[in-house]
Amino acid sequence: MRLPEDEARRRFATARVARLATADEDGRPHIVPFTFAFRAGAGQGESGRGGDGESGFPDRIYSAVDAKPKSSTDLRRLRNIRVNPRVAVLADHYEDDWGRLWWVRADGQAAILDHPEAMAPALALLAGRYPQYRAEPPGGPVISIRVNRWTGWAARLS
Amino acid sequence: MRLPEDEARRRFATARVARLATADEDGRPHIVPFTFAFRAGAGQGESGRGGDGESGFPDRIYSAVDAKPKSSTDLRRLRNIRVNPRVAVLADHYEDDWGRLWWVRADGQAAILDHPEAMAPALALLAGRYPQYRAEPPGGPVISIRVNRWTGWAARLS
Repeated sequence: MRLPEDEARRRFATARVARLATADEDGRPHIVPFTFAFRAGAGQGESGRGGDGESGFPDRIYSAVDAKPKSSTDLRRLRNIRVNPRVAVLADHYEDDWGRLWWVRADGQAAILDHPEAMAPALALLAGRYPQYRAEPPGGPVISIRVNRWTGWAARLS
Repeated sequence: MRLPEDEARRRFATARVARLATADEDGRPHIVPFTFAFRAGAGQGESGRGGDGESGFPDRIYSAVDAKPKSSTDLRRLRNIRVNPRVAVLADHYEDDWGRLWWVRADGQAAILDHPEAMAPALALLAGRYPQYRAEPPGGPVISIRVNRWTGWAARLS
């Protein structure tokens, strides 16, 4: 069954890992797992907090690239976002008992933050969620996703 | 560390769920979790079994759409594949102990099979993996993905 938007957001916010799908300028999709922090928006437009109405601010998802050097392959997510900021993010739950399956997808627009002041709030949220980031803060850049739409499904509400 | 191709394939084949990323004709990415069956290819080209050389046949990943009616939203994966067959598939493992993280991505080309004879081998493999599909076979269609490239990463080999 479809999840109400608030329930979709609630489940997404509890996930420890999600997956980021991007696509390059030729429409070739790419997908990576990522740790993330969620900042709930405020204000309710026609399309809920996932929207980007005149009042309030939209839900955001933040992720950081680790401080350790990455191969160019790892940075495809950043190259793709620079040429095509539309992204999709998925959190899902699997069990062999399919009555417990659920997933939540956020469709949105991504931006890359690389100035220390711009990254600081996101890095603080990430450090709050993951002790590893307190021990060794990621160097960035930060991917900031403005959520335009939430979609969720569960085998049953539990 | 990067995983050798054989280790990446081995880990992927053990996963119970993976995520399928597609993109529409405008390059807008889409992502869904899916159950799958893996059929290892044979023959080794320059690029390994992930390749599509003259000899042998490539690795394939199969997934089926459930028999139950789906809303048009659920079928975006099929619409996207029809206009843009390039897909990416991800299996990943998360634990709060980041020393145990790993992921494997398969980049490939997808085709949609909807004739019963074409779907039968894939549905048999899926039924072999998931008892739910033995109790209630999915009606199809089947998504058949020819893997062109494996990429894998693990925090450490274990």
